[in-house]
Amino acid sequence: MAIYQATTSAPVNIACIKYWGKRDTKLILPTNSSLSVTLDQDHLRSTTTSRADPTFKKDTLWLNGQEEVIKDGGRMATCIAELKRLRKELVEDKDPDAPKLSTFPVHISSFNNFPTAAGLASSASGFAALVSSIATLYALPCDASALSLIARQGSGSACRSLFGGYVAWEQGTSPTGEDSYAIQIAPQSHWPDIHALICVVSDDKKGTSSTSGMQRTVETSPLLQHRIKHVVPQRMADISKAILERDFDTFAKITMADSNQFHAVALDTEPPIFYMNDVSKAIIALVVEYNRVAVLKTGKVKAAYTYDAGPNAVIYTPKENVKEIVQMIIKYFPQKEAFKDVFGIFGVQGVQGAVVDGFNEAVAKPFDVGAVKGLIHTKVGDGPRVLGDEEALLGPDGIPKTLA
Amino acid sequence: MAIYQATTSAPVNIACIKYWGKRDTKLILPTNSSLSVTLDQDHLRSTTTSRADPTFKKDTLWLNGQEEVIKDGGRMATCIAELKRLRKELVEDKDPDAPKLSTFPVHISSFNNFPTAAGLASSASGFAALVSSIATLYALPCDASALSLIARQGSGSACRSLFGGYVAWEQGTSPTGEDSYAIQIAPQSHWPDIHALICVVSDDKKGTSSTSGMQRTVETSPLLQHRIKHVVPQRMADISKAILERDFDTFAKITMADSNQFHAVALDTEPPIFYMNDVSKAIIALVVEYNRVAVLKTGKVKAAYTYDAGPNAVIYTPKENVKEIVQMIIKYFPQKEAFKDVFGIFGVQGVQGAVVDGFNEAVAKPFDVGAVKGLIHTKVGDGPRVLGDEEALLGPDGIPKTLA
Repeated sequence: MAIYQATTSAPVNIACIKYWGKRDTKLILPTNSSLSVTLDQDHLRSTTTSRADPTFKKDTLWLNGQEEVIKDGGRMATCIAELKRLRKELVEDKDPDAPKLSTFPVHISSFNNFPTAAGLASSASGFAALVSSIATLYALPCDASALSLIARQGSGSACRSLFGGYVAWEQGTSPTGEDSYAIQIAPQSHWPDIHALICVVSDDKKGTSSTSGMQRTVETSPLLQHRIKHVVPQRMADISKAILERDFDTFAKITMADSNQFHAVALDTEPPIFYMNDVSKAIIALVVEYNRVAVLKTGKVKAAYTYDAGPNAVIYTPKENVKEIVQMIIKYFPQKEAFKDVFGIFGVQGVQGAVVDGFNEAVAKPFDVGAVKGLIHTKVGDGPRVLGDEEALLGPDGIPKTLA
Repeated sequence: MAIYQATTSAPVNIACIKYWGKRDTKLILPTNSSLSVTLDQDHLRSTTTSRADPTFKKDTLWLNGQEEVIKDGGRMATCIAELKRLRKELVEDKDPDAPKLSTFPVHISSFNNFPTAAGLASSASGFAALVSSIATLYALPCDASALSLIARQGSGSACRSLFGGYVAWEQGTSPTGEDSYAIQIAPQSHWPDIHALICVVSDDKKGTSSTSGMQRTVETSPLLQHRIKHVVPQRMADISKAILERDFDTFAKITMADSNQFHAVALDTEPPIFYMNDVSKAIIALVVEYNRVAVLKTGKVKAAYTYDAGPNAVIYTPKENVKEIVQMIIKYFPQKEAFKDVFGIFGVQGVQGAVVDGFNEAVAKPFDVGAVKGLIHTKVGDGPRVLGDEEALLGPDGIPKTLA
């Protein structure tokens, strides 16, 4: 008997124009468009294997080897149901010979190669991998934008992980959400020079979840509506143009301003929401000072910080600056473990903390080891990849290999 | 020969609707109206003695016993010149027998009874004391609003320290600033029950000065204009009504929302400005949780936090709640020195850290001794006071007694 199975991986994305607020919480329709950089799956990815089999008892999901309940009417169930509907309408109803996979239960095993403790949102890459895996299994004749409509209903920002490179999520206007999908502004190959340094910041307390936090902002922040109507549209246009022109200075300034404004509307919420802590703020102070020196020398900034709904910093920069930035971060935030130099920029002598000439070292105080508990160096990357069966996460019996 | 001398004291004020942004930096005309509570001079005050004498060589100022340069064209010189002009126009030109004090140099000695290290802005009480002292010396027939026009040119928020109780600074519209002055919304006696607990928060780094910070916000924050035009006017009306109705619930909610929004627009500035640190945020979390419990029990909040351009918290609350709040703060922020119980609310057994029933203790983690390095308990107070010569700060020779 045939085995119907597909394995794909999908990338993490980090927004430059932030998504914060839904106009429809069920369909996950945002109050503003957003734009992100897709990060390289060679470093950070979710991998998902899905298999359809008539002998399976029910749709079942394992996440990192643990079975997760698929709640009726929940986001996961919605995604699976949508994909089954497309399989039936676009494949089975048109080709009587196509196997009726839409009627078979699916087993899904998904794995993130980055620890949850890293504080990186895994829902975007996770739902993107799930949707691309089942879409491959079902041989859906859909492009990435069409699939992004489904991933969006799993986790809003997941829709942007269906593409590599530089990706916009168009908010759309339809109440059905049919025009709220991701599009690629530019592929990775257009501007491959953008690198990312993720500073994993230690945090004592559990923050407000983005799902509940953003709706509190929608309900209580007087500033959010102004952001939505009068700030984001222009920024979307401007940063898209900057990407097409590979204009890092403009890209960076908009990225930093929009990170700040997202955290500003979170703070304008009742009660206020804080995602950045004193370590996050010290990293901002370092990047601001690093850019001040760069502007004095060249008239342009060299790095952009951005913060999602947590204390971690992501610093975007052209590759040539990564070395200086890692040295700067390590000077103020000594690391317990050696920097994982995946791009080989430091050579055998390893990393020493240092700042560039003219840098005012008093802009931040050095922290103890562990304040920044990890540094991940990656770069702009491609979209979901279809993997071979040798990378499948499900064993012959249809349960995760790790459980066999 | 007659001695022409006057001594006054003036209070600190802490805003509920924040002043942030100037439309005229020379005249100190604000981009929005603001509103504050005047704190009791029994606890926090600036005291100023001024003396006019034809034998003095020049206008001279001592601040806390140190001579300060009176810069030509600076804020201090502007205030003194304005007061001399009023002396001449309103007194000397009308009464030929009045001594020509406007032609005499003045010696001014000013003293703050709270340490600079407390992180409390002394410019408001300082300029209010200076203006009221010289106005008394000059016997100016001016009401407090008229004097507030002069104090405003020393330090914007100083204009509000010319009144006790609950005070608005009307932004005005005239380019000359003639309609940008303070008015009293209600005297202290209207609502004497409002107490204030100042949590003096330890801070490693020097923050952005409010003078430069607010103008950076004016120049770069897309959200500030929305705040100015569409948020503050309604809040001014609503909080004034709440004060007149002694409606603490509304007063508190607006106060907290406006503190948050001020810090939000600071964060929306390029580069972003942060005044609150992790300790400030933990105090917010405690007040939010304390209010959550209160709302469950009574439907109304019991405390309001507010933060100026620094990490210190000021918590406003009706007197009956002060005990619970001090216990809560001390539980999370153990104190090196015993709480100075100026209102005798704890009795001989002293303060023990505690939280109210139903309080979720996990909303913040306890900090080490010194994170909050002092607690000052005070209440709404009166306006500037004219003091007797026995409290004068200048000796018979016209120099500060402390230097004699």
